[in-house]
Order: sequence, then structure tokens, then C-alpha cells
Amino acid sequence: MPKSYALMVVCPDQSGLIAAVTRTIAESGGNVLHLSQYTAVDIRAFFMKTHFETSEGFDVGRFEAAFAVLAESFGMEWRLLDRERRRRVAILASKTSHCLYELLLKHQDGELDCDIPVIVSNHPDLASVATQFHVPFFQVDPEKGKAAYEVDLEGILKDYGVDLVVLARYMQVLSGELVARWREKVINIHHGFLPAFQGAKPYHQAWAKGVKMIGATAHFVSDVLDQGPIIAQDVLRVADTRSVSEFIRLGKDVERKVLYEALRLYLDNSVFVREGRTFILP
Amino acid sequence: MPKSYALMVVCPDQSGLIAAVTRTIAESGGNVLHLSQYTAVDIRAFFMKTHFETSEGFDVGRFEAAFAVLAESFGMEWRLLDRERRRRVAILASKTSHCLYELLLKHQDGELDCDIPVIVSNHPDLASVATQFHVPFFQVDPEKGKAAYEVDLEGILKDYGVDLVVLARYMQVLSGELVARWREKVINIHHGFLPAFQGAKPYHQAWAKGVKMIGATAHFVSDVLDQGPIIAQDVLRVADTRSVSEFIRLGKDVERKVLYEALRLYLDNSVFVREGRTFILP
Amino acid sequence: MPKSYALMVVCPDQSGLIAAVTRTIAESGGNVLHLSQYTAVDIRAFFMKTHFETSEGFDVGRFEAAFAVLAESFGMEWRLLDRERRRRVAILASKTSHCLYELLLKHQDGELDCDIPVIVSNHPDLASVATQFHVPFFQVDPEKGKAAYEVDLEGILKDYGVDLVVLARYMQVLSGELVARWREKVINIHHGFLPAFQGAKPYHQAWAKGVKMIGATAHFVSDVLDQGPIIAQDVLRVADTRSVSEFIRLGKDVERKVLYEALRLYLDNSVFVREGRTFILP
Amino acid sequence: MPKSYALMVVCPDQSGLIAAVTRTIAESGGNVLHLSQYTAVDIRAFFMKTHFETSEGFDVGRFEAAFAVLAESFGMEWRLLDRERRRRVAILASKTSHCLYELLLKHQDGELDCDIPVIVSNHPDLASVATQFHVPFFQVDPEKGKAAYEVDLEGILKDYGVDLVVLARYMQVLSGELVARWREKVINIHHGFLPAFQGAKPYHQAWAKGVKMIGATAHFVSDVLDQGPIIAQDVLRVADTRSVSEFIRLGKDVERKVLYEALRLYLDNSVFVREGRTFILP
Repeated sequence: MPKSYALMVVCPDQSGLIAAVTRTIAESGGNVLHLSQYTAVDIRAFFMKTHFETSEGFDVGRFEAAFAVLAESFGMEWRLLDRERRRRVAILASKTSHCLYELLLKHQDGELDCDIPVIVSNHPDLASVATQFHVPFFQVDPEKGKAAYEVDLEGILKDYGVDLVVLARYMQVLSGELVARWREKVINIHHGFLPAFQGAKPYHQAWAKGVKMIGATAHFVSDVLDQGPIIAQDVLRVADTRSVSEFIRLGKDVERKVLYEALRLYLDNSVFVREGRTFILP
Repeated sequence: MPKSYALMVVCPDQSGLIAAVTRTIAESGGNVLHLSQYTAVDIRAFFMKTHFETSEGFDVGRFEAAFAVLAESFGMEWRLLDRERRRRVAILASKTSHCLYELLLKHQDGELDCDIPVIVSNHPDLASVATQFHVPFFQVDPEKGKAAYEVDLEGILKDYGVDLVVLARYMQVLSGELVARWREKVINIHHGFLPAFQGAKPYHQAWAKGVKMIGATAHFVSDVLDQGPIIAQDVLRVADTRSVSEFIRLGKDVERKVLYEALRLYLDNSVFVREGRTFILP
Repeated sequence: MPKSYALMVVCPDQSGLIAAVTRTIAESGGNVLHLSQYTAVDIRAFFMKTHFETSEGFDVGRFEAAFAVLAESFGMEWRLLDRERRRRVAILASKTSHCLYELLLKHQDGELDCDIPVIVSNHPDLASVATQFHVPFFQVDPEKGKAAYEVDLEGILKDYGVDLVVLARYMQVLSGELVARWREKVINIHHGFLPAFQGAKPYHQAWAKGVKMIGATAHFVSDVLDQGPIIAQDVLRVADTRSVSEFIRLGKDVERKVLYEALRLYLDNSVFVREGRTFILP
Repeated sequence: MPKSYALMVVCPDQSGLIAAVTRTIAESGGNVLHLSQYTAVDIRAFFMKTHFETSEGFDVGRFEAAFAVLAESFGMEWRLLDRERRRRVAILASKTSHCLYELLLKHQDGELDCDIPVIVSNHPDLASVATQFHVPFFQVDPEKGKAAYEVDLEGILKDYGVDLVVLARYMQVLSGELVARWREKVINIHHGFLPAFQGAKPYHQAWAKGVKMIGATAHFVSDVLDQGPIIAQDVLRVADTRSVSEFIRLGKDVERKVLYEALRLYLDNSVFVREGRTFILP
């Protein structure tokens, strides 16, 4: 039966890359369905994403061996993903529900190509939302000490075979150790247009500055707060005569939209990281 | 003959403000044509802008005296502007022409209600643009020493009776003394979405961060670089796979648009400053 | 105890309107809290919205009598609304849930200043959503004949004391008689950027035309399909290489946003109708 | 010396297309620099754009012969363009200058990769603009009869070796015969968000409808007025309380932006036409 793979490649820019990759796929019995490629001239890097399906005789192990040789010669970082395998995404939330609802509703509508096996929170408030959508809900307790609490948290992630963690307005900072173990596997939504307005109360900061647009940013969590690689962003024009509480209300719609968009891009294998920032390939 | 005035008022919020102002205008022989008002609940401040025309018997001196009494009792800052008097705006530019052209073309099309009596630059490159539009052009020389150069600059502004200075990509930092003398009378365009990306090479900064939108900000110049009150802002969604030089090219259109918009708002008496930021009243 | 009223006024433009209205309010013992006003020069019409609170001695009957005299002399249409009285809004939906969820979630978050006493549908599919939010759900049956079905429908609206009907992707056309009885009291969301793409399958129409942006429109229902006065609109830039089914998926977010926005504007007494179109006053 | 080509391909979707094209280029001595490809599932069409550079031994005639064989077997329409050859673009304008200025300024800034050898108008008003930018200006006279006037017009286009005609607010309808001869070689800017507001006075139409956004559309001219394939579009949110004349003023900025964008896309070989609409490939 034919299978479908996604292949992601990053390497220094050089001549002959597209031909080499497409030839290797063809010679292994793969047929390219989609190819998207881009050269970042500022850092002389080459990015490529391709979907291919297999014909009879394709052997994934043989392909990986053949591609490893090619990758070695061109200095490629690469990843091969089985497109039929659904990623398992855990949602972490605290008290506000709009981002959690957004992901659950989109998932219910078939618009997120993943499983959501578990929801975790440091508060009991959103348990009823999880129940509405029949997803197991766990409450963890940061008060018991950061280390012990993170042991609990990571235990849940492992028990549920989680591939990716989404912080849907989760109001706890993860430790550097946990972040390191889940590098580029934790996506956070920040309610400000990063790199402006990092840290607490970004809408208050925005109001005090008198900006004319407010925004939200979804990014990979790194060891520096609110400075990991940005995946998606959007802004909303607001009359500067609106109050802070109106900024907060209006901002919710941007937050949920941006978080959903970031998750879709990730699940679509469109997010590449290089030199501390992302490059999105359609 | 009837005259038309704009009245701008800011004060602590309190009961009876709208009635008091409209009554005072009516009792002086003014007829309110337009009224726009807003209360900033976060700082308990009241803002009001009104246009009124005069009937026979209106005396501006008597009105100002009557209004001063009212203003005193409510703690108002206020300004009365003759709507027929066109402001005189000097444009300062360096080498890039897109913002200068924008203002001159909009002015030529009758879309900027001001005079542009003079253009000043620290380079000769844009002299021909000034000539195309028949505006006197002066070249000043920062190399001769900041103090001496600013004496020249301010001399030109005075000779031409300038009310407002617009920095249309003028690549010289004004001294604190000059800025203090022209407080809220110098508008700058910054090619970044402030408060992010202050200082030099904002598009390079934006690219390195991997942001998904680039922006521009028009603001009053204050004594701290790129931190004066923001008047207008806009952003443009850009594929993060674009190069820095494409950011620069695409950003030009946002810059010229935002600068033009800020100047229009100023000329329309819509820009109020309070607590270090602006409030825009339509 | 002080009460708060909203007063909406439309009339031919003429001199002295703002003064006359504010004076009448003041003389009746009202204090203007907010005033927003606008003159449509193209049709010489004047629009005004004001919020005022009452002091002791204010009598609403006396105010209405006094204002009626004023209104007569200026040719005003006007409406006085008690700002404490929450409007009762019925939601009608069919099978797709995104607009229904949006209104219920926003209401749950305290962002819609109304009651939602009842949900009606011509299908059973969304009953569980209504139940999640503890709102009574009625299924009506258009198959029994238009007239009989509309008797059922209007009976429900009356039983629940409904002031406004929101069609949240309700796939039944209302009869001219029903629309006439509920003039400017039924808001519909259309999944196209009206006046383009009226009628069925607007996303298919948009795709076939190769437009670069898709949109949604909330409007009052009138007797001509998809041509009632437009209340709110928005668009989304889409790559024209997206499929129709992606247009449909992406469009949902614009639809729910625009419908929510229209309902908020209505509840905030910001929607004026004149010459077959709306004028929105903040 | 290496040369650079763009290859544009459209055909029915089928297996093996990407491999076949890239292999043919490689075997002819071409090295693919950029590849962008897309399948329109709704009409089962495949679109592809690729840039490649040549190594020694590449012969363009031999490549075309080899590719013709491939194209025949897959049912491809295709075009090969020499990327060093600058297209020659004529601008036609009438009285309003904003679109003409935009193209000339962008060209002067090196942002339009074409030559602009001639400007033609049915009025004398813009001659001085042409002169400012040192471009020959011709005035044609529709009053002398449509046929005779179009002979003059087409004569100028031929004398100047024009490849593409841009109607930058040119207020004359071209005859069906002329349009047929210049199929997909005439780009027009319409000051409305097509397909809404076709024909005359689109801003007046938009105002009467009470739309909340105004737009502009650049499209290929076809034999049905304002209905040719759309290349680029954009909209601007406008307060519906603005007057028609303000719509006209504000709309100018959208018009010039969209026309410039369409011309860039065309010059970048990104515009494909299939089934009466365009598909834009980056």
C-alpha cells in the first residue's frame, strides 16, 4: 500500500540541491507530490520541504540510508515524517478558557490533524471544559515545589505518549531542564507583539506606550522567557482611546487565532528553525 | 463673517464637563458643528475636541476670557485654534526620497491642509525633488559641529515661520535643547514597530528575530531616542522567508503611509498628549 | 437612584442641533456622560448618540414630552433606551456550530451585554451545544409548511420575550411577512463579502472568480435576500491557490468574528439606519 | 557565460510531474535555483514555476525541443523566459496622477524590473509628470473615432516595442479587437473590490451600500468590462461615516498599491491563468 512521507531539509546553500534531493527520492521509488523550497540569502541557508508517496518496492530503511549519504555530503540537517502518524498534543492551561476552547473546537471540527489525549492545569477551573470534550484532565500543583511538580507534569506527558506540548495561556514558567528536554516541542502563546512587551501584563505595557495595534505571538519555549523562536504573530488595530480592559478583551481573539495557526503550521511540518529564529515554508 | 474654531480640552474626569463646555460656546455666540469626546478610565482623564462656527457678535477675546474661568474651575488644559489658518510645515530629509515624495504628492493633490514653505537636508541628493515641486531647498552641514549646525537649522525654521517640523527619514539626531524648544512640534518616522526595534537598522533586527510582520511608527520627538509619544503606526505581514533587503523595500510603503497619516491627524487637531502617550480623537 | 439612558437621534442636518439636544438633557436633570455625533454630508443627515445619567428630580415621562417637542421642530427620529435593561436575544442555527459557539462563549465570558434565553434550530444536531451552555433548545420543522412552521417559530420568540433574533448560519429564508414584523430586529451572517457573492455557495463563487480575499457580512434581514443594511464586515487575505474547502475552513473565523461584532454594535446602540444602509457611531 | 531562465508550466494533474520536469532540466545542463509548485484540487490542474541557470553545454534550442516532447506527453502549456531580458511596459493614464507617479517612483527606485519606454494619455494634464521622469509622452485623441484612435495607440506601442500595457487609471474602454490582440498583456486597475462595484463610480456605489471596507482590483483586461482575471486586490477598512469624497481620497492609496503589486507579480512570472481566473505562484 502506498505511504506518504514529509521530508524536511536545511543546509548551507549550494548548487544542485533540488536536483539531488528529487533524484534520491525518485531512485528510491518515491513520487514527489509537493515541493516547497527557499534560500535565505542573508544567511546562505537552504530550506526544503517535500511530500512524496511511495510506490511498490520502496523501503524506508533503504531510503534513509541513501539519504544519509546525500545529507552527509551536503551538510544537511533533515527529518523524515510519516504523514499518516498523528502527533499527540497535550494542552496546558490555567484559568482563562478562550485558547483551550479554540483548540478543542477546531479539533472537534476536524481542523487539527493530531490527537489531544490530555489536558493539564495548575487550577481546577477548566476541568469542566475538558469534560465537555471528553478529554482526560489532570491538575498539577506547583505549590509542592518546582522540581516535584515538574516530575508529576512530565510523568503525565510520558504516560500519554505526548509529542508536543501547547501552553494555552498556562501561567507557569517551565524550568530550564524541562525546556531543554522538550526543545522545539513546547509552543507558548504570549499576549503581546514580541519582542515588544515581554513578561507580565503586556496589555498594560501596550496601553501605557499608546501603541495603535495590539498583538499576540506564538513561539517555541526556550530557556529565556518570551524569547524563543517566533512561529506565528498577528495584530489588531485598536483605537488608543480604548481602556486596558478592552485591550484584554479584544486581544483574546488574536491570541486564540495565533496559537491555532502556530499549531497547524507545526503539524503541517512547515516550521524550520535556524540561527535562533523560524522560517515557515508553505 | 463667520469664523471656524477648533477647541481642544484635556482635564481630570468629572461630572458636567460636556454641558459646561457646550454652554460656554453657545453663550459666546458659537454654534457647535462637531463634537468628539472620550474618557480614559485608566487614568481618569477627559478629552474633548469641538469645532464651532461663530455668529455675529462673537468676540474671540471675550470667549477666551470666559473659557479661561471655566478651565480654571475644572483644571483644564486647553487650546483654541483658528481653523482657517494653515500651519507651516518644514520637511527634513536625508537621502531616501519615498517619504518626501509622499508628502509633496499628497500636498500637491490638496490632501494636506498646510503650507510646505521649505525643505532642509544634510545632503544634496534630494534638491532636485524639492525643485520639481517648487519648494525652496536648504542644505545644512552637521559636520561643522552640532551646535553651529543647529543654529543654521533653527534659523531656517524661523525665517520661514515654521510651526511644525516633519522628519521624513532624516538621519540626524536633534539635540535635547532643540527638542525642548520644539516640544510636540517635531514628528519623526521610525522604520520599526515601536517600542520594538528602536535605534539603528530596525529591519535587520526584525529579520534576526524572525517576526512575521514589519511596521513603522510616527511619533513626536522627545529627548529619549525613538521613545516619544506615538502618533500613528501600521504593520505589513511579510513572509519570514523574505530577505532583509526585501523587508527594506516593502517597509517603505508602510513608512510613507504612517508619516502621512500622522501629519494629517496633527493638522486635524486630533492628537492629544497625556502621561507621556497620545490619545487620538477623530 | 441615578439611572443611565442612551438617546439615539437622526434628522436632517441643520444649525444648532448639538446645543439643542444637550440643553434639553441638562434642563431635565440629565448629565451627559458620552456624546458621539456625525454629519453625513452626502445626504445632509445628522446622527447623534449620547449616554446620560439622571440626577434626582429627573422624570422620564417629562423628559420624553420635552424631547418630543424638540424632535418635532427639527424633524428628528429618536429613541430613548434604558441602559440597564438587558435585551433578550434568540439564536437560530442549523448544523454548523462555529457561530453558535462563538456567541455562547462570548456570552459566558461576560462580553455580550444581553440575555440569550433560547436557541432554535431546524435540525437536532446542535441541541447538545445548547445543553452544554444550559440554554433551552427548540427544534422547528420547515417541512410542515412555511406558514405553520413560522407560526411555531414566532410563538417561541414571543414566549421567551425575544427582542432580537440572530441567524447564526441558519439555512432557512424567512418570509416577507415575518421579516416585516421584525424589521431591523433580525441579524444574519452571510459568508461572503456583500454585495458580491450573494445567495448560495459564496465561497465557490469567490474561488471561481479568483479573488484574493474572502469575507463575511453581518446585516439586517430585509425582504430582498442578502441585501439588507450591512452592519459589520471583514475579510481575510487568502492565497488563491487554496482550495474551496480551505476557503470554507478559513472563512469560518471571519464569519463568527463579524457576527459577534455586529451583535455588540447593536447592543451598544451604535447602529443607525438611513436611506437603506447603516451608519455606525462609536 | 551562465544564463538564467524562468519556466512556467500548467497541465492536468498527474503522477510524476515534478520529477519529469526537474530531470529534463538537469539532463539539459540546467541547475534548478528555485521551484514553486501547486496543485489546484478543485480543477485537477498542476502549476509549476522554476528558475534555473545553465552550465556550459546548455543549448536553449535543444532544451526547447526536449521539453516540447515532455510537454506533449503530459498535455502541458508552457513558457520559457530569459530572465535577463527586461520587459518593455507602456503606461496609459488620463488625468489623475497617483497611479502613474507610483509606477514611475518605484521604477526610479529600482523596484520594477522592466523598462518604461513610453507614456500615453488621452489628455495633456500628465505630460509634465512624464517629463519629470524623462519618459516620452504621447497624447492620443479618442474623439477622432475609436478605430482611428486605436490605430494611433497601437502604432505607438509597436514603435516602442511594448510587451505589456498598464492602464493606470486610463478612462477609455479598449475595443474587443485590440483586447484580443493583447490578450493577457493589458493590466487595468479598477477602483472597487471586484466583482462588486463594476463599472462607473464604484466609490459612490460602495457608499450607497454602506460597506465597511473599500478596495481596488488589478486585472487583465478582457472583452467584458471589469471582468477579466484578477491579479491583485486589497481593501481598506473605512468608517462608514466617511463621505464619498473621503472614500475617493483614501482609495487612491489602495489603487496605486494594488497596481504596483500586480505589475511586480507579472514581471516576476508569477501570474498563471486557467479557467478564466489567475493563480499566483510565489
